[in-house]
Order: sequence, then C-alpha cells, then structure tokens
Amino acid sequence: MKVAILMGSDSDFPVVQKTYDILKDFGIEVTCNVISAHRNPKRVLEFAENAEKEGYELIIGAAGKAAHLPGVIASSTPLPVIGLPIKSSTMDGMDSLLSIVQMPSGVPVATVGINGALNAGLLAIQILSVKYPELRDKMKNYKIEMKHAVDKKDENLQGLL
Amino acid sequence: MKVAILMGSDSDFPVVQKTYDILKDFGIEVTCNVISAHRNPKRVLEFAENAEKEGYELIIGAAGKAAHLPGVIASSTPLPVIGLPIKSSTMDGMDSLLSIVQMPSGVPVATVGINGALNAGLLAIQILSVKYPELRDKMKNYKIEMKHAVDKKDENLQGLL
Amino acid sequence: MKVAILMGSDSDFPVVQKTYDILKDFGIEVTCNVISAHRNPKRVLEFAENAEKEGYELIIGAAGKAAHLPGVIASSTPLPVIGLPIKSSTMDGMDSLLSIVQMPSGVPVATVGINGALNAGLLAIQILSVKYPELRDKMKNYKIEMKHAVDKKDENLQGLL
Amino acid sequence: MKVAILMGSDSDFPVVQKTYDILKDFGIEVTCNVISAHRNPKRVLEFAENAEKEGYELIIGAAGKAAHLPGVIASSTPLPVIGLPIKSSTMDGMDSLLSIVQMPSGVPVATVGINGALNAGLLAIQILSVKYPELRDKMKNYKIEMKHAVDKKDENLQGLL
Amino acid sequence: MKVAILMGSDSDFPVVQKTYDILKDFGIEVTCNVISAHRNPKRVLEFAENAEKEGYELIIGAAGKAAHLPGVIASSTPLPVIGLPIKSSTMDGMDSLLSIVQMPSGVPVATVGINGALNAGLLAIQILSVKYPELRDKMKNYKIEMKHAVDKKDENLQGLL
Amino acid sequence: MKVAILMGSDSDFPVVQKTYDILKDFGIEVTCNVISAHRNPKRVLEFAENAEKEGYELIIGAAGKAAHLPGVIASSTPLPVIGLPIKSSTMDGMDSLLSIVQMPSGVPVATVGINGALNAGLLAIQILSVKYPELRDKMKNYKIEMKHAVDKKDENLQGLL
Amino acid sequence: MKVAILMGSDSDFPVVQKTYDILKDFGIEVTCNVISAHRNPKRVLEFAENAEKEGYELIIGAAGKAAHLPGVIASSTPLPVIGLPIKSSTMDGMDSLLSIVQMPSGVPVATVGINGALNAGLLAIQILSVKYPELRDKMKNYKIEMKHAVDKKDENLQGLL
Amino acid sequence: MKVAILMGSDSDFPVVQKTYDILKDFGIEVTCNVISAHRNPKRVLEFAENAEKEGYELIIGAAGKAAHLPGVIASSTPLPVIGLPIKSSTMDGMDSLLSIVQMPSGVPVATVGINGALNAGLLAIQILSVKYPELRDKMKNYKIEMKHAVDKKDENLQGLL
Repeated sequence: MKVAILMGSDSDFPVVQKTYDILKDFGIEVTCNVISAHRNPKRVLEFAENAEKEGYELIIGAAGKAAHLPGVIASSTPLPVIGLPIKSSTMDGMDSLLSIVQMPSGVPVATVGINGALNAGLLAIQILSVKYPELRDKMKNYKIEMKHAVDKKDENLQGLL
Repeated sequence: MKVAILMGSDSDFPVVQKTYDILKDFGIEVTCNVISAHRNPKRVLEFAENAEKEGYELIIGAAGKAAHLPGVIASSTPLPVIGLPIKSSTMDGMDSLLSIVQMPSGVPVATVGINGALNAGLLAIQILSVKYPELRDKMKNYKIEMKHAVDKKDENLQGLL
Repeated sequence: MKVAILMGSDSDFPVVQKTYDILKDFGIEVTCNVISAHRNPKRVLEFAENAEKEGYELIIGAAGKAAHLPGVIASSTPLPVIGLPIKSSTMDGMDSLLSIVQMPSGVPVATVGINGALNAGLLAIQILSVKYPELRDKMKNYKIEMKHAVDKKDENLQGLL
Repeated sequence: MKVAILMGSDSDFPVVQKTYDILKDFGIEVTCNVISAHRNPKRVLEFAENAEKEGYELIIGAAGKAAHLPGVIASSTPLPVIGLPIKSSTMDGMDSLLSIVQMPSGVPVATVGINGALNAGLLAIQILSVKYPELRDKMKNYKIEMKHAVDKKDENLQGLL
Repeated sequence: MKVAILMGSDSDFPVVQKTYDILKDFGIEVTCNVISAHRNPKRVLEFAENAEKEGYELIIGAAGKAAHLPGVIASSTPLPVIGLPIKSSTMDGMDSLLSIVQMPSGVPVATVGINGALNAGLLAIQILSVKYPELRDKMKNYKIEMKHAVDKKDENLQGLL
Repeated sequence: MKVAILMGSDSDFPVVQKTYDILKDFGIEVTCNVISAHRNPKRVLEFAENAEKEGYELIIGAAGKAAHLPGVIASSTPLPVIGLPIKSSTMDGMDSLLSIVQMPSGVPVATVGINGALNAGLLAIQILSVKYPELRDKMKNYKIEMKHAVDKKDENLQGLL
Repeated sequence: MKVAILMGSDSDFPVVQKTYDILKDFGIEVTCNVISAHRNPKRVLEFAENAEKEGYELIIGAAGKAAHLPGVIASSTPLPVIGLPIKSSTMDGMDSLLSIVQMPSGVPVATVGINGALNAGLLAIQILSVKYPELRDKMKNYKIEMKHAVDKKDENLQGLL
Repeated sequence: MKVAILMGSDSDFPVVQKTYDILKDFGIEVTCNVISAHRNPKRVLEFAENAEKEGYELIIGAAGKAAHLPGVIASSTPLPVIGLPIKSSTMDGMDSLLSIVQMPSGVPVATVGINGALNAGLLAIQILSVKYPELRDKMKNYKIEMKHAVDKKDENLQGLL
C-alpha cells in the first residue's frame, strides 16, 4: 500500500499535512513531494509515468489557482488520481476547484472540496480498500468513531443549553 | 467487478448513459437505478448499507441542483463513491457541483466535472484497476487509443487547412 | 408549541444560538442537537421520521458547505423544514445556500439567508402563528418594536450629524 | 384555508401555475394576482396589511431580477411569506434568488429554489398542515406517491437497459 | 438644492458618510435618515411620496444584502433615485448590487459601485448640475483637482523609484 | 432638452432602440451614434469634451463585455452619464455590468440593469425632470399608466383562472 | 515570422479559425494542430521544447474547461504563449478563463477574452511587431480600418433613425 | 529595451513593484507612472499615442475594479499591452479581471492573473525576447533557477517529514 502526495508549492503543506497524517494513521506508506507542473513539467511527467512501476497505487495532487498538477499527473498514468484544490489569496479557491474538476473527457481527476485535505486522504483509503480488506475494516471503525464524536459534541451542547 | 450507478431522476439518464456504456465496454457488471435521496431516502440508505455485502465495489451517484444523492450514499457505505454533477435548467450545474464536491470532513465524494459522465465511468475503472490488473491493461490501451484519436483529428485538420 | 433545531456541527452553534434564543423568547419549547447528515445519517432519518409523533411541529436545519442536513430532514417528514445556510471558510456561504435552496421538485426547504439565524427563528414563529394566535400577537408586537428600534437609531444619527 | 399568490408580472404565470395547481389539488382556496412592488407599491402594502383580516393564512410572492415583491409583502404582514425566485433573461435567476433570500434580520422570507413553483405550493401546504390535520394526511400520501413514481421510473429504466 | 440620503441601517453610516460629506462640501442641503424598507415600509413610502413637495430634488438610498430600499423609494416618486450597494458580511456586496441594479422595466435606480459612497454623492451633484450652473462649475473644478492629485501621486512615486 | 446615446457597436442597437424610443416619446431631442471606446478613443473623448457646449445635458453609454465606453465618457465631461450594460455572447452580461458599475472614486456612472434599455431612457428623463417640470408631469403620468397596465394584466389573469 | 496554434480539441477549430485567418492575412507563417495536454502530454512537451529551434517565435494555445494546454506549453518554452479560453457546454467559459489566466508566479500566459480568437491573433501580431516593423505598419493600418468600419456603421445607423 | 508601467492608483504600487523589480533585474529600462484612465484620460491617450516614438516597446497597465486603463492604452497604440488586474476591497479582483480580459474584437490586452505582478514582468520579458536574444538566454536561466528552487523546497520538505 503506497500513495504519493504531490503538491505544487511548499506553501500548500500546512493544508496537505492532514492528508499525509491520515494516510500514515491508516498504516499506508506515503511519500510527499513538492513538484511543480509549471516550473518542472518534465519531472512531473516522469514521476507520473514511473509511478505504477515504482509501486504507487494512487496519486494525490494538491494545487491552487490555475491548478494543473492533478490533471497533468492524470494524463500520464493509469493510476487513479485525486485532486485537492487549494484556496489561494484570491477567488476563494474557485479557480483551483474549476481547474481541477472540469477535466476533459477521457482523463478524470477524483476531486474533493476546497482545502478538503482530510477527505483527500480518506478517499485514497476508500479506493485502496477495494483491494485491501484491512483498510476497509479500519474505515468502518473510523466511520463509527465519527458517529461517536458527533454524539459527544451533542452531549456537550446539551450541557451548555 | 461490480459497480452501481444511482441517479436522482430518470431525466438524468441521457447523460448517465455514457457512464453505463463505458463500464459495460470494460467488461464490468453494472446496475443502474433511479433512486431519489429526497423522495425515498430510506431506500437510498438501505442500498448504501447493503452495497458492500451485495458485492458492489464502488458506487456512482449522479444528481442535479441540490445534489445530495452522492453524499447521502457516501454517508452509509465504506465503499468509494463517485459523484457526477448534472447540469439542470438553471445555474449551469454550479449548484450541482458545489452540493457534491464541498462535502464535510470525514465523508469524501470523488467528484468529476459537470455532466462528466464518461469520466465518472473511467474513474471507476481506474479505481477498480487498483485491484484488477486486467482493467489496468485495458485502461492503458484506452489511453493509447485516445492519443491515436487526437492524432487522427490533427491529420484531418491538416487536410482542411 | 415545540420546535427542533438540528445543526451539522457544533461549530455552527455560535450562529445558531440566535435561532434558539428568539424561539425561547417567544415561549416556544425548543430542542437543539448536533446531528450530522453525513456522519450519522440513520439518526437523522430516525429523528425526522419520529419528529411528528414526538410532538414537534417544525424543524430547523442549519448546515454549511455541501449542506445536506435540511434536505435530508425534509425527505423524511411531512413537517415544514426551515434551512439555515452557514457560511464556512470558503465560498462565503454560496455553497451552503445553493445546497439547501435548490431542492428538487416535491421536497421543499424554506430557506433563509446565509447566517440568517434570527430570521430562521422568526420564520418558525410566523409559521407556528398560523395555528397559535398568541404567537401572532407577539409577532405583531415584535414588528412594532423593530419599527421603534429603527426610529431610535434614526434619532441617534440626527444627534451625530 | 386560504392562500394568496402574488406575482410581479403576468409573464411569470407559466411558472407560477404549478404553485396554483398544487394548492387547488390539495383543496386550498387560492387567489392569484399580478401586483407589482415597483409599479404599484401602495396596492402591495394594502394587500399585505389587510391579508390577515381578509382570511389569508399565508402569502406566496413570485418575482424575478431585483425581486423585491416577497420582501415588501413580508414587511407588512405577520403572516408567513414564501418567496419564489423567477429566472429571467439574464443571470440565470441568481439575481432573483439573492434579492429574495438575503433578507435583513427581522423580516424573513421562506425561499424556495429558482423557478421552484411546485415546491412553493408544497411548502405552503406543509406550513398550513401545522394547523390543518387533513392537509398533513394528504401530504403524507403525496410523499408516498412520489416514492411510487420514482420506483415506477426505475422499473421503466430497467426495461431500457 | 436639497437631497435626501436614506439608509437601511445605522451600521451603513460609516460608508455613507462620504456621500453626506461631499454633498455638504458642494453646498447642497442634505438630510440623512435611517429608514428601513422592511421594518417600516410605510414610512419609506410616505417619505418617497412626499419628497417632491418637501423640496427634495433627488434621493439616495443605501442598503445591503437583499437591498430593496432604493427600489422601493423609486417606486413611489418621480424624482431620480441613486442606489448605493453596501457590502455586508457575506457575498462581498454582490447580493446588494444585484438587488439594486437589476430593477424591472419602468422603475430605474441609478446604481453606483459597491460601497461607492463618494460616487453616489458626485453623481447626485452631476444630476443637480443639469439645473444648477454653479454646481457644474464646482464639478469642473473638482475634476481638475482630481487630475492634479493624480499628478502629485505620480510625482511622489518618482521620488520613490 | 437634448440627450446623446452612444453605443460601442451597431449590434447593440436592437437593445438600445428602447432607450431611443422612450426619449423620443417624451419629446426629448436625441442623437444616437456608434462610437467605440477602443477603436476610436479620440472621437469618444472629443465627443465627451464637447458635449456640454453642443447643448447635451446628459449622455447614455451602452456597451458589452469589457464595457469601457460609459466610463471613458464620464472621465471627460461634467455631464451626468448613464451606463447601460449589454449582455453579450458569454458571461450573461456580468462582465458588462461590473466593467460599468465598479467605477473608481471620483468618476461615477449611473448604471442600470443588464439590457435595461427602457430604464436607461426613463432614468435620463427623471434626471432631466429635475430641471424641466413638463418632463416631471409626463413621468407622473407614465407611472400612473404603468399601474393601470399592471391592473389590466391582473384582470386578464383573473379571466384565465 | 512563424507562429504555432495548438488547440485541445478539433471542436475548437470553428472558434480558432479566426486566429488562423488573421495571422495568414498579415503574412505570417502559421501551423495549426490538435494536440491534447491530457491525452498526449508528451507530444505537447516535445512540441514546446522544440518550438524555439523549429523557428517558432510565439505559440497560441486554445482550450476549454480545465484548460491546461496554454499553461503546459508555457512551462516548457521561453517563447511567449498566448492563451485563448474556449467557451464549452457549461459555465459559459468561466472555467476555461480561470484555468488559463490564474497561472502561478513564474510562468505567465498572455490571456485574451473568452472565445476571443481574433484578439489572440492580433495580440500575436502586436508581439511579433516588436521585432518586425512591417507588422507594426500593417497593424497601424488595421487600426485605421477599424476606425473607418465603426464610422461606416455609424453612418448606416443614421440612415435607420 | 524600454517598457512603461502605468498604474491607475498609487495604492497599486505595493503589488506592481514586483513587475518593476523583475524588469530591472533583467536589465530592461523601465518607467513607472501613476496615470488614471478616469481622472486624466487625455494624458493616458497622449502617453499611448507617443509611446512608440518615445522608444517604448511594450506597455503594462495595472488597474482595479472597473479597470479600464490597459484597454484604453491598447486603443491608442500598436504596441503590445499587458493588463494586470489588481484585487481591490470587494469582489476579490473578479471585476478587475473581467474589465481587462474581456476586450472587444480588434483591441487585445495580454492579461495575467489577479495581482500577478511578477508574471506581468516575465511576460513582458518573454515578449521582448522575441527581438532580443540576450533576454531569451536570461529567461532560460530564470526557468532553470525556478526548477532548482522547487527542488530545494522539496528537499526542505523531506527534512520535515
């Protein structure tokens, strides 16, 4: 079980860290790299082309503004690619979202919400769980814990009212 | 290899058919149902809760406007869920896209572009190919064919100029 | 006279408190719960299905981003449902508003403005006043007080000019 | 049981007719008038001020563009007011929606989706059903019929696949 | 020369003050009132209906969100009405702008930019200058001063480079 | 009483004709010219600079897309300038509206709604009526006729119900 | 003088043809190819990397939706790159525009308006005219002809009034 | 090699400085002026008309809101014009972007992203490098340095993980 996280800029890491951490928590091998679709396109293509044979099973691309990184990765690998739109200093992330999700026919990117870093990781886990039953079991537990956490918050609220 | 397509309204089928067809073309067992998150929420939950043990490995939800279907499915299954936003008569699909992609932390939906029915199917295939090598091979061929198709279109264009 | 307020996250409570307070001020019995359409969908459906026989006459659902809560409630109860879109960290609440108001035919949600918590409460009161004349009278007084408050603000302004 | 439908222009009637018809179908007395917040504001205020004593229990206002009608009505009556944003020739109804839903604190309008005429009627029925049990029963049946209609559509789809 | 400024809320005054000040600077008699289209619609109509005979020659309405005030004024007076959209806590003033500018045929509102308080005042002056030559002359001087101010800023910049 | 209508392209005339016709109907002298801020900027500036001494009392500028015409006119005349945003083939007129209404401090353009050609003309009449009492009287009659027209439409609707 | 036009899909050609024709009209050597950033990324990179030594002086990239083509080209060439956003079936070209114009620091794309094919060609000519005086002269004539064309349209309009 | 930077307001300089600095770094002669399309249109036209014979080879116009400056410059010079949309206090720069990029046919502006000041400078360099081989060489080095900078950031990240 091995996943690559690529991000367009190191300034994206405070957001992307949640993706990294949840994958680690689920016991998945993760690499995380700054790699720019626009400053070093060849390295991106090489990474994407070699990802499968390097043992990666899924790639997550995080980027902002005219966010081409996930799409460029998807163009050069048969692996599933998750796109994580990063909110930048203008446009509230709308430019990032549209640049990632509106891919042309033939080259899908599995897009999560703006700054949805935790969800990018959980989606990766759900995808890998198609193959790995132990991840499926952990995900079921995770969902149960989420329920309990909401219940707990509700109890706390009752104390406040 | 078994995938469920659920759509909120039968009026979505002309779009969704591309999803259905590409999955069939790749030799995947597909079921396709009209099922409404708002008119029959219980049936949606039951479907989602039972999907794993009924042998489904992935669910695709297509919906328009306040498009809750993919999110509601995702809430009740550990399977990966793909969301396909349908363009309706107003807002050019923006409402559908935001209602699907902006999921809260913990419950991701793998969103494709507005009316991106072919991509929803291809994303499903890429996800399943994590487990099934034969799908990976077919996807690689599909990508090669796409290249050839573009080259062919370019040749035709040269004839026109 | 009994109203339920449901919210998708306890982080919504600072906004939702205005809804709670105005209902209390008008002498209406109110319950307020954190309950997530996506983390615990079954509990939401159960709540919605039982709400009528538990004596609730109206439900208010507050949620942000892909805000499915009010719509999911509306799908499982014949009671009127008010939707309160919460502004989250991106998109200025536009995603919340569209996810709540753009409901499909057959399942309306009475939507108020983004972060319009006071209005959600007042709308509930106006709806209940169809049945309870004492609420109608209080609402008339409330409207008169609003007029006076504006007049007072105008007087204060004259002092400043 | 008596409801008023007011619309800003007779060109809105093809949309609004669904509101009118569903209310009739549920056995509610309905009046329907063209009345303009901008061409005849006094008549709107008079209507709103007298609505309660004329026996109306709820008012529905339909309007497009800078859609002030529902808000102006709500300013002058303690009755619940439903706002129906009409899509006009530009902006895809976004201007109508924002002009209706973003009401200031103190004067709510229960807003439905753009061109959501059927939902405006159903919301009115749900609100009146707080007082009239027979409407509640009919609404429950309506919801059951909607389920059956979706099931029927699903059956038809199975025939096509 | 007499102009009325009406604003929907006293919280708009910090923006509106620029309108007030520029009118004073040009020697125009100005009144400024908080008056709410939604909390006290009758007072708005009365003001609008009497404005002409009270000697007002133009009315400026400032409002935010579902900003009906300028349109409601325009509905009840033959005087020219200027609309000033106020930016509120959500939507960056887009709701205010559309609610003011997208008036239906027959009832125009002369709209300026979001929070464009100075421009609302200058537009009033330009309109009155159709009748009052002394305002025309002052406006010409004002335009010359603006040119000088820009030139001065340019000089300062040259010092910095 | 003399008004200039300038439009950026002859393709705008089908919209602008309503402006022209209503001004004629009110007995105002009108000139109407195709003049492009971008193809012939000098002619625009000359027109604007000479407009006052040529006897014009107000200028209406109609333009689409990056609609600079009204702003450029306003930069070179002390006359009031009305901006009419024209809907073009993309963006539903939003680009035209923002390019016209969001003028910088010091140079206002009195903006009407997208394709609001009739309102551009009526606003011109209201502005001129500050000086010309006969226009004020005609405008009052026009408003009365609008009321009657709405009443008539309401009567017709009653016949249909 | 040699310019490359690349487009993401042959369906873009009816728009792009205006770019091609104006370049031909100005006597510039033009090649025009269908080449997809997503279906054949390597060919795009190769084209971009070799463009300079193949004698190209400028590249125009036309693309729709998540329009990565111009940005991907710009990443691999020091030549100036013009981006032409194509309007597709949803979003009115807004997704194309943002995906092209919002490039990260370091890799600019000279973006023209949505479907602004003629302008893409004219901008290329203006850029090349920095080096080639004969193009500068032709561009000056073109601008004069545009003025005459507007004047002619104005004359025609005067005939209609 | 001589470039002019014009900006609509001195408040734009903190953004524009990056444009100025990068041009200086590349050894290009740069002038930088505050010049307003709306407060001093004549000076803008004069500047634009004389720019070519004053030895300028390219003009960069930076402006916010209804950002007419780059378009007005482009109307009066055959030189290539780069438009830099400045984000102002409302609308997140969307108004600036559309006012600059959506130019009518015949008068292109080479638009960069919102607040994309560095890119405006780099685009200018790429355009001039069509003529000046030494700029082309420097640009190639700049691109190589960008690659190294990203690689360095990636190394730093590896240290953190």
